[in-house]
Amino acid sequence: MAAKPAIKNTTDAKHRKLTMKDIRAAAKRLSNWGRWGKNDEIGTLNLVSAQNIIEAAQLVRRGKVMSLGLNYDQYGPQGAKSKYPSLGRFNPIHCMLRTGTDAYSGVLDKRKIRGTDDLIIMPLQCGTQWDGLGHILYGDHMYNGFDCRTVTSAGAEKGGIENTKEKMVGRGVLLDVAKALGKRWLPDGFAITNAILDFTEKKQGVKVKRGDYLLVRTGHVERCLAKKSWDGYSGGDAPGLAFETLDWLHTKEVAAIVTDTWGVEVRPNETSEANQPWHWIAIPMMGLTVGEIFNLGELSKDCAADKRYEFLFVAPALPITGAVGSPVNPLAIK
Amino acid sequence: MAAKPAIKNTTDAKHRKLTMKDIRAAAKRLSNWGRWGKNDEIGTLNLVSAQNIIEAAQLVRRGKVMSLGLNYDQYGPQGAKSKYPSLGRFNPIHCMLRTGTDAYSGVLDKRKIRGTDDLIIMPLQCGTQWDGLGHILYGDHMYNGFDCRTVTSAGAEKGGIENTKEKMVGRGVLLDVAKALGKRWLPDGFAITNAILDFTEKKQGVKVKRGDYLLVRTGHVERCLAKKSWDGYSGGDAPGLAFETLDWLHTKEVAAIVTDTWGVEVRPNETSEANQPWHWIAIPMMGLTVGEIFNLGELSKDCAADKRYEFLFVAPALPITGAVGSPVNPLAIK
Amino acid sequence: MAAKPAIKNTTDAKHRKLTMKDIRAAAKRLSNWGRWGKNDEIGTLNLVSAQNIIEAAQLVRRGKVMSLGLNYDQYGPQGAKSKYPSLGRFNPIHCMLRTGTDAYSGVLDKRKIRGTDDLIIMPLQCGTQWDGLGHILYGDHMYNGFDCRTVTSAGAEKGGIENTKEKMVGRGVLLDVAKALGKRWLPDGFAITNAILDFTEKKQGVKVKRGDYLLVRTGHVERCLAKKSWDGYSGGDAPGLAFETLDWLHTKEVAAIVTDTWGVEVRPNETSEANQPWHWIAIPMMGLTVGEIFNLGELSKDCAADKRYEFLFVAPALPITGAVGSPVNPLAIK
Amino acid sequence: MAAKPAIKNTTDAKHRKLTMKDIRAAAKRLSNWGRWGKNDEIGTLNLVSAQNIIEAAQLVRRGKVMSLGLNYDQYGPQGAKSKYPSLGRFNPIHCMLRTGTDAYSGVLDKRKIRGTDDLIIMPLQCGTQWDGLGHILYGDHMYNGFDCRTVTSAGAEKGGIENTKEKMVGRGVLLDVAKALGKRWLPDGFAITNAILDFTEKKQGVKVKRGDYLLVRTGHVERCLAKKSWDGYSGGDAPGLAFETLDWLHTKEVAAIVTDTWGVEVRPNETSEANQPWHWIAIPMMGLTVGEIFNLGELSKDCAADKRYEFLFVAPALPITGAVGSPVNPLAIK
Repeated sequence: MAAKPAIKNTTDAKHRKLTMKDIRAAAKRLSNWGRWGKNDEIGTLNLVSAQNIIEAAQLVRRGKVMSLGLNYDQYGPQGAKSKYPSLGRFNPIHCMLRTGTDAYSGVLDKRKIRGTDDLIIMPLQCGTQWDGLGHILYGDHMYNGFDCRTVTSAGAEKGGIENTKEKMVGRGVLLDVAKALGKRWLPDGFAITNAILDFTEKKQGVKVKRGDYLLVRTGHVERCLAKKSWDGYSGGDAPGLAFETLDWLHTKEVAAIVTDTWGVEVRPNETSEANQPWHWIAIPMMGLTVGEIFNLGELSKDCAADKRYEFLFVAPALPITGAVGSPVNPLAIK
Repeated sequence: MAAKPAIKNTTDAKHRKLTMKDIRAAAKRLSNWGRWGKNDEIGTLNLVSAQNIIEAAQLVRRGKVMSLGLNYDQYGPQGAKSKYPSLGRFNPIHCMLRTGTDAYSGVLDKRKIRGTDDLIIMPLQCGTQWDGLGHILYGDHMYNGFDCRTVTSAGAEKGGIENTKEKMVGRGVLLDVAKALGKRWLPDGFAITNAILDFTEKKQGVKVKRGDYLLVRTGHVERCLAKKSWDGYSGGDAPGLAFETLDWLHTKEVAAIVTDTWGVEVRPNETSEANQPWHWIAIPMMGLTVGEIFNLGELSKDCAADKRYEFLFVAPALPITGAVGSPVNPLAIK
Repeated sequence: MAAKPAIKNTTDAKHRKLTMKDIRAAAKRLSNWGRWGKNDEIGTLNLVSAQNIIEAAQLVRRGKVMSLGLNYDQYGPQGAKSKYPSLGRFNPIHCMLRTGTDAYSGVLDKRKIRGTDDLIIMPLQCGTQWDGLGHILYGDHMYNGFDCRTVTSAGAEKGGIENTKEKMVGRGVLLDVAKALGKRWLPDGFAITNAILDFTEKKQGVKVKRGDYLLVRTGHVERCLAKKSWDGYSGGDAPGLAFETLDWLHTKEVAAIVTDTWGVEVRPNETSEANQPWHWIAIPMMGLTVGEIFNLGELSKDCAADKRYEFLFVAPALPITGAVGSPVNPLAIK
Repeated sequence: MAAKPAIKNTTDAKHRKLTMKDIRAAAKRLSNWGRWGKNDEIGTLNLVSAQNIIEAAQLVRRGKVMSLGLNYDQYGPQGAKSKYPSLGRFNPIHCMLRTGTDAYSGVLDKRKIRGTDDLIIMPLQCGTQWDGLGHILYGDHMYNGFDCRTVTSAGAEKGGIENTKEKMVGRGVLLDVAKALGKRWLPDGFAITNAILDFTEKKQGVKVKRGDYLLVRTGHVERCLAKKSWDGYSGGDAPGLAFETLDWLHTKEVAAIVTDTWGVEVRPNETSEANQPWHWIAIPMMGLTVGEIFNLGELSKDCAADKRYEFLFVAPALPITGAVGSPVNPLAIK
């Protein structure tokens, strides 16, 4: 067993040395622009082969389905206290268009059927969610060099989430970092470095492979659920991936990366020159699909119990045309 | 090969003889109330066993993923002409909260990141969708005998779609009725009878089994797409299941039933005494999960090509607390 | 000058003696059902005569227009802390459909015009607002004896706010109770009794008359604005009208009553047997139009300066068909 | 009485000779940038003096209130056929948050009050409406030279409709052009020229003055209501103001201009080089407040009856912070 890797916590200023120069170098080094053709709109999801899917299906041995999604309702992570400026996100608003009380009152009977209907108003990034490739821009461009002006008030002409509608299926791998480090959940500012990812792989006896959907657990969602408060979750300090993991993910050729945090990467960020520097590269330069606010608690327990950290992962985005994100009910099937 | 079954078309009045007495008898005969305990909120989804899921996963042989969902946008099936009174449904409204044009204009840079966000306003039954068990009531009750007054303006306290969040996985079977009958698509009023379902099973060489997700294709969505018009689709005349199929589905013990029509059952309905009589029984009495407005075109072609009408079906509802329906991006994986 | 009236504060339990019997007696005593015909849908707004309007217009002497409305935005009174169970209200959500940044980016030029558009999502009771007559029910009835089942998920068939579209014009009178009592604002639990209304009339030298729009100032909105916090405002303790004022208002025959509080009446309420007992009578029994969350600060200062507490009041509701409330930008014109 | 002026109909190509050069010249000639200070955000509304308001109030002689607004509901002008590309506008969506049927069903009684609530989702330009000064841009600027990038996805930082909250009161004048020309309603393409405005003034015996709210009636709304169809109304051909009226309005110094059409100006437009060329100048260059989709039918009849075409006009916009438009219930009081 490997020795525990060094700890890096960005609440300590010495771990916040990243510069714009580093970001620009990474943008160049890790760019996938053109890799799958100049018209490609799905980025690293191209890495999932048919063979990957066939093999992933073979991982279903117990017939157990686990949802990695939070319910969408007024108890979601939006609206809590945060030191980050508001982004206009709010918890889902669910309205009824016809109700059982209408039925009981007899007012529906003219239709000769007693039916109910409902409606939702929700920011696409308000809960468990996929980011679309139009969600983050690098300078005046989005993934694959598309002009950022293709994302207008009318939606994203390029890289809309609907392009992924037949993707989001493959081998899921959980790297349960909190568990590997013997923690219930990681503290804010805790940077998950490449060494920690390597350590967790070894500890779990699993290898991340090309085309995998990689799920990294910090325990952040569970911490909030345990405290019955989302204060500080959205946009606040958080454990998360170090900037250097971009190279790790690039080398591993994962299809997508998912965490149980608001924004994947460690906060405070490793720099004050950019906000969410990891995002600057991951989405627009690498075309990496990113999932956030996943609830990995049940999966963590299940993997610890059966010692299997791989599973069939199916997490289809809603094909909302031109969307830069999507709510999702992600499933791990073992 | 079986002889083609008799055709029943409800545009002909002689095929509209169903009465309230028949409906009431079916309610009694087919009730699943209490079958899975008095607190059960998922009905026939209980029929899917872990073994079913394991076996379904074995059906993945080519690594091909097909989405059975329409995109959610202004080109959806709502808002077209219909002779049915409006239900307040409309196509999804997608709004941007921040855009690439904002980024280009420099107004986002104070955040030190160029990100976009969006929001959706949509009736949960406006496109490809799961009906929740609170969607249709029988008298003053919903499935399992719950009081219909549990579905208030605040949502469904019982049978909310969030209860299904770890379901909607299993063996999918396509009964391509239109194809079996040599049609590109079935005409309006065409009743899919038990004999036709049997015929299609035989013709395709597939057997519907306990716990299956059954997909029945009429070609209706494809007809609208070909005509570039949804006129008449929502609430208008349509091909669909005959009332008698309730018994067939009950006997077969399917987990869920899906069609490519607006409302599963044949229209004009087989009676004028009730609207959507099949729904009166399927949802509140049987607790049968129903999927509508699925696009089965690509799947039809694929199954015809490889002669395999079974596949892994994964179609997770969004766990919207208290919802009586959910949009869905359903996947057939072969 | 009259002596200051006795103070009644409902935070003291001895002032919370109202019973359901009192409420029922008031319902009978103060009912206006049938007073303006069995089909009437506007209640006390009928009390405004053409002559009242002509005379009110004569009050315009300085050409000064004051808005009594709060702006509609994310800084409104919803979403703050409250001990009252949530009613699903939230501050307005304003989304852009096309922007100046779109224009700057050149993406609108295909239309040969650079235009912007926007959209709002708002509870009709979230800010400065008129309650419609369908907003509060008494037993199974609404104003004028209409069945409460006429207010369905499809809206209010009776008493919808659109019926008032040519009303809400007349003589406005401000009773500045806080000012009359020498307070910047009244404390929570402070009950404005009939004696206090009489005292304020005398102190100001104004008489409330038939058909008046009566505005009663407690200073509550100003208190929140001064504290930069709406905590406790919506549904929390508040100064407000005592139950007995129903008789005073009935005798005076006011057309409408407006306050600067969340819910007009004193909180804690004068009883624990009903919530908002004054509302039980005012809206469904009297058909009294009620305005809430008005900002009376500027008007207070102006009236104190010119000693004139009467003015032309114009506060048209948006004629939203079937609505039980409406946002409003109410104007006092002097 | 003046002779009837010449008729100009833009469905005839010879009346579509306007060029970009003309538009640019008008922009220069008619600019009000800086006229009321470099920080001004309300433009021509500055022209209304206190004296104007006092005099307008004197016009109230019969105590009659007329609403010039259409109701906001599913029967509004959006969603009908149009040859103009969609702008994302739709008729208001009104949802109930609590209902009388909930009350009847007993589910609200735990609150000890039976109350209903509702919510609206509406484009601010979907019905009777004020355009804000941020609604139309000229090049990269909005009114008063503000950078168009001040209108972002977060709303209009400059010229938001909330700036008008104490305006929209003054003398209203109806120029009933259709009536003056002996028509029930004007045909599509009919250009209202300066000569026609002069003719109508003379015919009616009224003079438009500085600070007036000018209402010009074409009968278009009434035509649609009579035909029970809004087809062609939104963005289609229409009667309306000729481009030259910009000079007339500038000289007259009106505070605002209102019509009963979708877009004030004649359509087909007088040019194919720009869409809505009159708008290019009126809003961003002149800072002229524009009202659209007003219903002038009742007012027309009333003015014809009493021969008085002037009245007190009160039409307060909802102060939605950063909005580029507002629904309104405009009142004419005589």
